[in-house]
Amino acid sequence: MNKDDAGSAGVSPESASASGLNRRHFLGAATVGTGAALAGLAASSPVLAQGATSAAPQVDFPDSRQAFGGGGSAGGAVNRAEIDLYDCEVEGAWPKDLDGVFYRVGPDPQYPKDPKYASDIVFDGEGHVSMFRIKDGHVDYRTRYVRNQRWKAQHEARRSLFGMYRNPLTDDPSVKGLSRGTANTQLFLHHGKLLVFKEDSPPVSMDPLTLETLDDYYTFGGKLASQTHTAHPKIDPLTGEYIGFGYEANGLLSKDIFVFSADRNGQVNWSTTVQAPYAGMMHDFAVTQTHIVLYLTNMVADAKRIQAGGVHFSYDSQAPCYLGVMRRGGDGKDLRWFRGPNLFCTHVMGGWSDGDKITVDWDGGEGNQFPFFPSLHEPFDPAKSRGLIRRFTVDLSSRTNDRFQSETLFPQVSGVLSRQDDRFHTLPYRYGYLNSPGPGGGWSIIDHQEKTVQVASVPDYSLSEMTFVPRKKDAEEGDGYLIGIGSSMKEGGRSDLILIDTKDVAAGPVARVRMPFPVVGQVHGFWADASQIPGLTHA
Amino acid sequence: MNKDDAGSAGVSPESASASGLNRRHFLGAATVGTGAALAGLAASSPVLAQGATSAAPQVDFPDSRQAFGGGGSAGGAVNRAEIDLYDCEVEGAWPKDLDGVFYRVGPDPQYPKDPKYASDIVFDGEGHVSMFRIKDGHVDYRTRYVRNQRWKAQHEARRSLFGMYRNPLTDDPSVKGLSRGTANTQLFLHHGKLLVFKEDSPPVSMDPLTLETLDDYYTFGGKLASQTHTAHPKIDPLTGEYIGFGYEANGLLSKDIFVFSADRNGQVNWSTTVQAPYAGMMHDFAVTQTHIVLYLTNMVADAKRIQAGGVHFSYDSQAPCYLGVMRRGGDGKDLRWFRGPNLFCTHVMGGWSDGDKITVDWDGGEGNQFPFFPSLHEPFDPAKSRGLIRRFTVDLSSRTNDRFQSETLFPQVSGVLSRQDDRFHTLPYRYGYLNSPGPGGGWSIIDHQEKTVQVASVPDYSLSEMTFVPRKKDAEEGDGYLIGIGSSMKEGGRSDLILIDTKDVAAGPVARVRMPFPVVGQVHGFWADASQIPGLTHA
Repeated sequence: MNKDDAGSAGVSPESASASGLNRRHFLGAATVGTGAALAGLAASSPVLAQGATSAAPQVDFPDSRQAFGGGGSAGGAVNRAEIDLYDCEVEGAWPKDLDGVFYRVGPDPQYPKDPKYASDIVFDGEGHVSMFRIKDGHVDYRTRYVRNQRWKAQHEARRSLFGMYRNPLTDDPSVKGLSRGTANTQLFLHHGKLLVFKEDSPPVSMDPLTLETLDDYYTFGGKLASQTHTAHPKIDPLTGEYIGFGYEANGLLSKDIFVFSADRNGQVNWSTTVQAPYAGMMHDFAVTQTHIVLYLTNMVADAKRIQAGGVHFSYDSQAPCYLGVMRRGGDGKDLRWFRGPNLFCTHVMGGWSDGDKITVDWDGGEGNQFPFFPSLHEPFDPAKSRGLIRRFTVDLSSRTNDRFQSETLFPQVSGVLSRQDDRFHTLPYRYGYLNSPGPGGGWSIIDHQEKTVQVASVPDYSLSEMTFVPRKKDAEEGDGYLIGIGSSMKEGGRSDLILIDTKDVAAGPVARVRMPFPVVGQVHGFWADASQIPGLTHA
Repeated sequence: MNKDDAGSAGVSPESASASGLNRRHFLGAATVGTGAALAGLAASSPVLAQGATSAAPQVDFPDSRQAFGGGGSAGGAVNRAEIDLYDCEVEGAWPKDLDGVFYRVGPDPQYPKDPKYASDIVFDGEGHVSMFRIKDGHVDYRTRYVRNQRWKAQHEARRSLFGMYRNPLTDDPSVKGLSRGTANTQLFLHHGKLLVFKEDSPPVSMDPLTLETLDDYYTFGGKLASQTHTAHPKIDPLTGEYIGFGYEANGLLSKDIFVFSADRNGQVNWSTTVQAPYAGMMHDFAVTQTHIVLYLTNMVADAKRIQAGGVHFSYDSQAPCYLGVMRRGGDGKDLRWFRGPNLFCTHVMGGWSDGDKITVDWDGGEGNQFPFFPSLHEPFDPAKSRGLIRRFTVDLSSRTNDRFQSETLFPQVSGVLSRQDDRFHTLPYRYGYLNSPGPGGGWSIIDHQEKTVQVASVPDYSLSEMTFVPRKKDAEEGDGYLIGIGSSMKEGGRSDLILIDTKDVAAGPVARVRMPFPVVGQVHGFWADASQIPGLTHA
């Protein structure tokens, strides 16, 4: 996203063009005279060359790596292929009793943007879901775009109709009233539905096996009284309840936060609307057995930028961050906002209550972790974006306390996309997982009890977010596997699905699926045991 | 397929393993101890390790490049991914009035073979069809395996059930009675059906838009009185008739040849059964306005080899080749077999009648062109496999003549997979096309009238078979485009769909579709104008 993005990604402009990544240069070099021929043909086809004003424009992503979808598929910026690959090639031995689905989702630009929105961010790409169905050591792969309202309108028009990230003022008039949601961030299986999330919109419901989109605007039977829904709902393992929230719940720059829970059948059994100190990003949250813990990052919704046709957010280092704590099942009037150090926290590792004491662990940096959003007061500082495990505690017993405490755990380990054994949502937990990129990195396994860290390293691979898979349904916490995608840097980004045994991390991957290509990109993933999936339960 | 195949394909064993193509070596290098871990796990999972006798074996193609599917997807030996890619990335300007579909098919091993059949040939891979739907400069890509009887049985079993190429004695007992056809060679649109061919079996009918398999054993309403059907039927452009044949029509080593035609609606309006001098390969044939021209290559059906569990054919340089000529619409009793030089001809460029004089042009070599089939009397000779344009003529006016004449045209041009403007099947023709691989090669355009050759070269690309596309429905012969797939050797085989304007060959490609990956392999392709395709005609 930076001017020197190609360089920082380890691909120099020289090597990029040598490997054919610069498409214009490549075309010119490959066939003498082709460039001229192309130019001539374009000139004689003014309808095609002029673009949106007449015929649909041709699908040609911009060359600039700084642009939305820039580099196209050749640059790895888009994938776009919807795929069924039955019985993937497997190496090693997939555990015979592993029976479930590993789901993933990420942004995958459906169309190049109108050039005036070419500076839009990668996270505005349309959601593309992939799944690995694993049983008896056989693995089937399937991907589908989420057919939400946005995708369908653009598919029909064969071009981009939505402008900048979370800025409806930049949309084509033809899509007024349609949901802008991309459904590109996380997915979750609950009450038999595969729900796919983008935090600016309600979930989309997909069939967990076919990936057919079933509801392009899922509102829990009309009970989701919010225009938004987090990408990170939680499940209470004791009750099976689903707990979610939406910020900017009632429109652009709204301070309303809708918080709710639904029972194991998806019936909303509690909801309330509370107010944030200001409208800003609240990407993840924590739920304990008794409380909801919100976090307001100082990534502020920026009215001026939106009016000017820019992205939704600006990083404001001078705005305070807040931890918000409220009782589950209450009317929300007990919500209290606590101040602490301004840490840019994105993902919760785990959290629990011990009487009046609330503890939540996040990965977080001292400064902006999202350089693609503009910074109001200072340039982006990579050093300050470094994510460490931040433990926030707050004591609710004092009625006058307005501060939370922050402690950095395992300062030797940095990373992002923290996770846990999802069966320990809301509960005290022992094991956390962190994606630690870079040399010597890998998937870090944090043991809070023994205060140790193990790193599952896969040399020459770039690893996506890991997800924990229990060895058996009733396995002890952390006993099982880490599953996730690795991209082979020596093979042009070709992907493996990798399985690490948490009881023998040093052994490296115990099994792999060798994909023939780089798989579609991922923000987050989710493991669903076969018993959770309708249609598989009786198979 | 030879022991030194990797070397002859330009990939040395050293470079193969350096680029990660040797999967075992790669795994070992990537993660210290991984190999041992994998071995250990396999040992503790004897059910998985033992394979077919208990649980379904894991899908892991052999490493050896000489083996069927050897190297797997990493080695480019299989693809297996069924894909929808809507609105592909386009460069250049696709002609705005080009409206139709470019279809392709090739073998794509569905499963690794039982190790005792690992020496099977690549052409025993299951047929995988791909299509590029082109309209208004937008291009949609779709691929599907042909769901024929063989595919369905193996899909269900999750393993290979069919043994060696055209040898039913090597099959799993569970598939007795099922068609062995792979439908992997050519496809053809006629009477609204997409028919997909393998010369050992009847066609499979697919929906031309969805690629759904509609009939896994298509017999023209029961009128195809043959167990086989050529991959190269012809269309009579004056009547719209479809002319086809099947050799070894009545079982293994049968000398029967079933010849037939169907009207433009697919109603069989003529058929007869004739006899070949011996059972051998008859890959292509020619049809003129008055005659059927068969060709029997000295690739003999080999009873001993079949009994021993080998492939169907052996190359027998001592067996004569025959040109067989018979009237269209007759009872077949007029069939005469003519001898000439023993040329190994595979594909017809064009053919016509002028009274009693029949002319047919083929590409052909002096010796075996299919090194993957064993040779009975001498080792494979690459020099003799070189394909040149062979013009065969025969004069039917003499009742005693038993020879045809052979002449080599354009000896400076070698190649394979010869084609013509399909609108000139059965008629005198001016333009032929030849795929001429190697340095300085490309798609060769033969002008028989001016006696010139132009080569459409795309440097650093390996080109698949080209197909001619008329510029407009009533364009003059040869006025239009050559369309086909090129694989970028500098980008790991990533594919482009390439369009060459036959009126400006020197300009190189006028337009391309840049695919994100190597597309599924191809033997042959077929262009269908939108007006031929049900569901598109009224769009």
